Amino acid sequence: MLSTVYLYNMSLLCVGSVALDTIETPHGKAGSILGGSAVYFSYGASFMSPVRLVGVVGNDFSQEEELELLKSRRVDLRGLRTENGKTFRWTGRYVGDMGRAETLDVALGVFGDFQPVIPPYYQDSRYVFLANGSPKLQRKVLSQIRKPKLVVCDTMNYWIANEKKALLSLIERIDGLIVNNDEVMQLTGMYHTVSAAREILKWGPKMLIVKKGEHGALLITKNDFFAIPGYPIEVVRDPTGAGDSFAGGMMGYLAHSDDVSVKNLKKALLYGNVVASFTIEDFGLEGLKDTSRKQVQDRYKKLLSMITV
Amino acid sequence: MLSTVYLYNMSLLCVGSVALDTIETPHGKAGSILGGSAVYFSYGASFMSPVRLVGVVGNDFSQEEELELLKSRRVDLRGLRTENGKTFRWTGRYVGDMGRAETLDVALGVFGDFQPVIPPYYQDSRYVFLANGSPKLQRKVLSQIRKPKLVVCDTMNYWIANEKKALLSLIERIDGLIVNNDEVMQLTGMYHTVSAAREILKWGPKMLIVKKGEHGALLITKNDFFAIPGYPIEVVRDPTGAGDSFAGGMMGYLAHSDDVSVKNLKKALLYGNVVASFTIEDFGLEGLKDTSRKQVQDRYKKLLSMITV
Repeated sequence: MLSTVYLYNMSLLCVGSVALDTIETPHGKAGSILGGSAVYFSYGASFMSPVRLVGVVGNDFSQEEELELLKSRRVDLRGLRTENGKTFRWTGRYVGDMGRAETLDVALGVFGDFQPVIPPYYQDSRYVFLANGSPKLQRKVLSQIRKPKLVVCDTMNYWIANEKKALLSLIERIDGLIVNNDEVMQLTGMYHTVSAAREILKWGPKMLIVKKGEHGALLITKNDFFAIPGYPIEVVRDPTGAGDSFAGGMMGYLAHSDDVSVKNLKKALLYGNVVASFTIEDFGLEGLKDTSRKQVQDRYKKLLSMITV
Repeated sequence: MLSTVYLYNMSLLCVGSVALDTIETPHGKAGSILGGSAVYFSYGASFMSPVRLVGVVGNDFSQEEELELLKSRRVDLRGLRTENGKTFRWTGRYVGDMGRAETLDVALGVFGDFQPVIPPYYQDSRYVFLANGSPKLQRKVLSQIRKPKLVVCDTMNYWIANEKKALLSLIERIDGLIVNNDEVMQLTGMYHTVSAAREILKWGPKMLIVKKGEHGALLITKNDFFAIPGYPIEVVRDPTGAGDSFAGGMMGYLAHSDDVSVKNLKKALLYGNVVASFTIEDFGLEGLKDTSRKQVQDRYKKLLSMITV
């Protein structure tokens, strides 16, 4: 269970995108709403831990109120820079079972030239999440952190296809990799998740987290295999941000508890799953905004009971 | 854990098909091998409990050795009739991720006119599995059982589409329904498994078991929701019989322990999942034939540890 005392020294850093999303799902539409990997991650982590965010927006960015909301949740935005140009915009659509987003338009804007600089007062961060991005940049970020305790990294099919060498070089240096089933196969050329995961663990990381959407997630280490089902949601309205808020819930819990034992990693996976379940119940950040820390706790207990024999 | 004393009075009956299967998967081919729902179920259940089998074969059936094997595993075959005509033959293929069988040919033979008669010495069966078949026949079987303690029924898309009324009338009278995700949706017209499951539970059954292939299974009752992941298998060679041997492992454990509490149902689901994991590791019944009771126990413990926080 979460204690109510926060350990501010167990600092959690996230480097990723801050975006304006336009989303269509079978349940509705939303235009130019605050999104991006760093935003979803930070919001998800903020239930358990303060977060340090590094990202960039353009000078067209006017969602100041939304940023205030993040600040009020102990998300430190001193690492968010404003640069001349446009904020990253993503337009996407989900159809049918909403298993995959269909990207209709991407305008990278200032995020396209993003060269993350970690401010000196963030360089002592102990828990680090490198959101999906160029593996070269992810590695540059990592080299600026003095003595991280746990580095977890996300990636996607584009980088596996186009920057595999840089990605493998990054993977050697991290503790945990978050991927989905397709990415596991693409990375290894192996068909079965378990064999493929074992292969990836040989490359360096201590753990692999496989996201399976509604089917939950796997935690695979050299000696452990842990699986949780997705938290059963009656109506999924918008899957955007599910993966990043999952990572946020997980890393937030780890930073909060400052314990990276396998037993605690399992708990962290449950928290990640719970936070993601709130994300997908409404559009954009609305699901998370409407959620209290107590609701996260309650759903955690419920999920735990669902897998307890 | 399984004790080594069998309770022969907690009799388990299965009514279903005995077939000759011709199967092709990315891992190989096998022609005219023993299969069918009643066979896979019985074999799967036989790790834990004796089984009474009711089925039919044609007078072309010559797989006597295979039947001896079932007998040696305490499968009572007095309910297996031989009739003039051909044995049910199924020819199928699995491609890609082997998620669904592609039926290339079906010749129902004597199974097409199967009118199951439950011998008097089977009519006291306490645990009953009605394998996939016409709901009218399933109901006829049920009416011949004097005082069943737990009746679990399988079905498929064909019956939902073509005999829904008869199926609903059967569902009112059973304790548990085993379905996959697609069938849950087809039955209810509802998209989300959880809401759909709640709807089905209103129709009569105490529990719904949702099979999700490699993603495991769900047990949903009025007050409980239990989810298990699929047992992680390195190489799936042939998914044929996974569902029926899952049901066998589950019902075998329930009949053996004679305890239908939710806590025990959860354990039974784990046993079902474990038995199915052995089935799919090789063609036809080969995976089960190579498996010992101790291996089932060991994998059960392993699966339990995989979901334990």
